[in-house]
Amino acid sequence: MKIEGKNAVYENLAAGKAVYKIYLSKAANQAQYKDILDLARKANVKVELLERQELDKISLTKNNQGVLAEMQDFVYSSVEDILAVAGVRNEPAFVVALDGVEDPHNLGSIIRVCDCSGVHGIIIPKHNACPVNETVAKVSAGAISHVKIAKVTNLNQALEELKQKGVWVYAAELGGASIYEQNLTGAICLVVGGEGKGVSQLTKKVCDGVVTLPMRGGVNSLNASVACGITVYEALRQRGAK
Amino acid sequence: MKIEGKNAVYENLAAGKAVYKIYLSKAANQAQYKDILDLARKANVKVELLERQELDKISLTKNNQGVLAEMQDFVYSSVEDILAVAGVRNEPAFVVALDGVEDPHNLGSIIRVCDCSGVHGIIIPKHNACPVNETVAKVSAGAISHVKIAKVTNLNQALEELKQKGVWVYAAELGGASIYEQNLTGAICLVVGGEGKGVSQLTKKVCDGVVTLPMRGGVNSLNASVACGITVYEALRQRGAK
Repeated sequence: MKIEGKNAVYENLAAGKAVYKIYLSKAANQAQYKDILDLARKANVKVELLERQELDKISLTKNNQGVLAEMQDFVYSSVEDILAVAGVRNEPAFVVALDGVEDPHNLGSIIRVCDCSGVHGIIIPKHNACPVNETVAKVSAGAISHVKIAKVTNLNQALEELKQKGVWVYAAELGGASIYEQNLTGAICLVVGGEGKGVSQLTKKVCDGVVTLPMRGGVNSLNASVACGITVYEALRQRGAK
Repeated sequence: MKIEGKNAVYENLAAGKAVYKIYLSKAANQAQYKDILDLARKANVKVELLERQELDKISLTKNNQGVLAEMQDFVYSSVEDILAVAGVRNEPAFVVALDGVEDPHNLGSIIRVCDCSGVHGIIIPKHNACPVNETVAKVSAGAISHVKIAKVTNLNQALEELKQKGVWVYAAELGGASIYEQNLTGAICLVVGGEGKGVSQLTKKVCDGVVTLPMRGGVNSLNASVACGITVYEALRQRGAK
């Protein structure tokens, strides 16, 4: 997988991920890439200088800020790995599951907000969903190196298994209890739907309940990553974040 | 200005905005556009059927969902218009100001979340900022028809004038008071900075204070529209939203 842009390359190096090679634009002012070059030297990662046009030719997002890295494909975790993070941190489970999020920009942005809010991990379905690809990596600004992501064949079954382990599963959707009145301090998994379609009927049936953001406007339509951000931060607030 | 996509065209018609003409793809299943066609008939707006390729040729965002409308350029409001909304709703002022938001996707997404959370209006600077253009209109999913937006020559002066009118001005930035500990129930203006750069030093000096989201992750970098969404919804919660 290619990782593109300063943040993404830096974060992957800093997190000790398997970076095979870094490509830097010859036109770049190397002082601006000092942090990256220092880490690359320490990790024995080869840096190759390329003409700007050559770099753009191997760039997939066409938005590489003069640097990209060839690295190991994204390594998914298991749901157990995610729950283990909760154990290590001695916190009640704090999980996000995505149902039908197909847009890589939304997925990347959701990974960013899950990193910021201390979510233990994200569960995504194998089918009808965006995988962790180059665009997701770029939009996540490096957060894919810090948040565990599990890919499951059957999302509803994964949610059932979470429930059996004592995790409360809530769909973030219209028509439910206000997120400001729902207790989100225990072990929880918040299910976020794709833009436009929301959480599917079948998945909603598996959930213990539905939590809803108040809507005060004329259109009342939120971007999936914004809705996810508001919801996970409300959980974080209830869990005593200052 | 061209407005593209089902939501945007529908919302502008529904809000009674000056739509001159609607272009619909001949290939489109007209039943899916019934709401739009009904409103167009009522408002005496001409609908022209075009071949898909012709439609794409006049489309600016290349993401028109088979429909676009030619309409009046976006009409900006004044800061007084925004404060008048607070008066009419009998609520303490709830304003968002943007400092250096240059990305149209961020601006469109911010307008969406301001609509949902009942923000009275958005103040944007004339320079070094994204204006309300076609892409913003599309991303806002029609919310530009519902949220007042004022464009000012000097943002800092506009903020000073708000302060003189009893509005508390807070920069949403790193290094300030937790948004969960700051009282946001009075007349407030939240200043949101552009991605990467944040709120400028000069503007921060004008502000009464800085409010900050807790950060628990490895990267701790939020998209501007997500950060804005979490902040305005926290204000909404404190104002008693259920």
